[in-house]
Amino acid sequence: MSVPATTVTPPLADELDIVIPTIRNLDFLEQWRSFFQPYHLIIVQDGDPTKTIRVPEGFDYELYNRNDINRILGPKASCISFKDSACRCFGFLVSNKKYIFTIDDDCFVAKDPSGQEINALAQHIHNLLTPATPFFFNTLYDPYREGADFVRGYPFSLREGVTTAISHGLWLNIPDYDAPTQLVKPLERNTRYVDAVMTIPKGTLFPMCGMNLGFHRELIGPAMYFGLMGDGQPIGRYDDMWAGWCAKVICDHLGLGVKTGLPYIWHSKASNPFVNLKKEYKGIYWQEEIIPFFQSVVLSKECTTPQKCYVELSKLVKEKLAPVDPYFEKLAGEMVTWIDAWNELNPSTKGTDVAAVKKTDGAPKKK
Amino acid sequence: MSVPATTVTPPLADELDIVIPTIRNLDFLEQWRSFFQPYHLIIVQDGDPTKTIRVPEGFDYELYNRNDINRILGPKASCISFKDSACRCFGFLVSNKKYIFTIDDDCFVAKDPSGQEINALAQHIHNLLTPATPFFFNTLYDPYREGADFVRGYPFSLREGVTTAISHGLWLNIPDYDAPTQLVKPLERNTRYVDAVMTIPKGTLFPMCGMNLGFHRELIGPAMYFGLMGDGQPIGRYDDMWAGWCAKVICDHLGLGVKTGLPYIWHSKASNPFVNLKKEYKGIYWQEEIIPFFQSVVLSKECTTPQKCYVELSKLVKEKLAPVDPYFEKLAGEMVTWIDAWNELNPSTKGTDVAAVKKTDGAPKKK
Repeated sequence: MSVPATTVTPPLADELDIVIPTIRNLDFLEQWRSFFQPYHLIIVQDGDPTKTIRVPEGFDYELYNRNDINRILGPKASCISFKDSACRCFGFLVSNKKYIFTIDDDCFVAKDPSGQEINALAQHIHNLLTPATPFFFNTLYDPYREGADFVRGYPFSLREGVTTAISHGLWLNIPDYDAPTQLVKPLERNTRYVDAVMTIPKGTLFPMCGMNLGFHRELIGPAMYFGLMGDGQPIGRYDDMWAGWCAKVICDHLGLGVKTGLPYIWHSKASNPFVNLKKEYKGIYWQEEIIPFFQSVVLSKECTTPQKCYVELSKLVKEKLAPVDPYFEKLAGEMVTWIDAWNELNPSTKGTDVAAVKKTDGAPKKK
Repeated sequence: MSVPATTVTPPLADELDIVIPTIRNLDFLEQWRSFFQPYHLIIVQDGDPTKTIRVPEGFDYELYNRNDINRILGPKASCISFKDSACRCFGFLVSNKKYIFTIDDDCFVAKDPSGQEINALAQHIHNLLTPATPFFFNTLYDPYREGADFVRGYPFSLREGVTTAISHGLWLNIPDYDAPTQLVKPLERNTRYVDAVMTIPKGTLFPMCGMNLGFHRELIGPAMYFGLMGDGQPIGRYDDMWAGWCAKVICDHLGLGVKTGLPYIWHSKASNPFVNLKKEYKGIYWQEEIIPFFQSVVLSKECTTPQKCYVELSKLVKEKLAPVDPYFEKLAGEMVTWIDAWNELNPSTKGTDVAAVKKTDGAPKKK
């Protein structure tokens, strides 16, 4: 059988942006060149806007610094964090693609147990384009994967699954620990390659890490606000957690799926645990009240778009979390600003029902 | 450093029984000899009681056939299935140990990716003796495992975990598929070794397979009734599913944990899909109503023991599932008979609050 001599187009090359928050030259892209070069990059430069960030040649990118953010958003720029990787969500806002992959600049290409380099982006795309199964647990993990299926006793009516909105990837080498755990276990490295992708069940929250994350921007982008962190704020390193809690309750409400597991990236450098402790310590006790809050959130039936969900959630945050600290009142306000900015920059998706987007995506496909 | 020349006592040797339902000679035990020999076996002989089952020499065992079951339980023997592996739960009833491991006689020792033989029993014991985390998902899977921990954003108040009641192990080679999937994919084999143990979150049901299963008999044994299957019943191959649905909602109610994943066993032989289809077909459509029923079960606060939970559940089964088929009215009745038999044979645990048993177990220990 002869194979036609055509170039294979990378999947979703015209429908996905790679968002990278950074304060340094992006030499890490050299390692990712063969996987990322066909895609468009959105680089969000944090910190001093006069500094020049070097991007290796041959990449197709746009770069925004703080001056750009202020110019584009005007007074609404207050919702974008400064001096914190939370600024990455500006990239989600200005993208006009259907999907986002976001990665930190200290994340490199990992290898699977056979020594093969892992194309993390390809795995995220696969995760996003196959359904998720949030209503019942499948003991052989992802039932849509080659060589696996739904096991005996899995209801047939649930085997079509639901559209996947989020693909959460993991990290070999430096695990994503909080400051106390970093301090107690400074030498711990994640060396275990768990060869699985699974759906996080409906009703279960998880700690979403923004280091290696893919998502369906049209379906859940408006909920991917990374909060107010860093400069001038009482907290840091909870940006992705905040987005994860909000996005998960909204996915549950809208009937969308969230997956975690593969792909792994190689996380190269542990951040300073003392600095982290200073950033995190309020979050460590606040989260004891935040988690029960999110576990009890019920959104109304009228919330049929991620925007509507997010605005309703902001009201609940103001009502229920402002008593924990005045910070949450401010955050609730910026959640609304974020949605205003989203709607301004994405006018076509303003009123889009998730049901309609799911429909144009077509029915989830079984392998 | 010199190592003392003492024999290491296998863990829980005096506190765990291995329950095996069978209709044939137990030659499969030869492969398990080094792992199982220190433990007591309870063999439940199904089918013709006049047949002699050969047990390899050197094993410490007791064997019960149908005549024994009828003699010991009298009229209550009606709750124990005949000509179906559901009869295994008779072994749970007559055990007087704290833990049970049950395995099918077509399950052999599997090897991990390094070629090492897997001591499935040791892994189940490890799973049962370390806490579970049903209230929040940990993205690095079992946080109590060597080399892993709770990730950033995991609430510290939840890091003690809860007592583990069930350890559900998996199968390499022949996957546990229903008849339709077997028919469609006759050649599919499970070759993927997923190196993980995880807690199934609270509120999420799963398809529990009885092939390779460990549990805390004192805490959840009374809910491990494998139902009415096989001879004279309209359904088969849903025995373990039934036990899994009941046990999971009761674990959720009592604050106990359910784990799945490692250990793998080697499942040697696919059962006949045509025979299976005949046994399963009613279950395949009944489960479409059974699953929503279990998803909506709420037990009252008065249910503080697995027995009380199970009796209350039997009433709900009668009320909500009898309209699906008269079979469920009969099943609900035998659920009560089962608890009567349990209390008769286990008088000391009749009124034991789970809170008290958890207390005598001591606080869950962090590695």
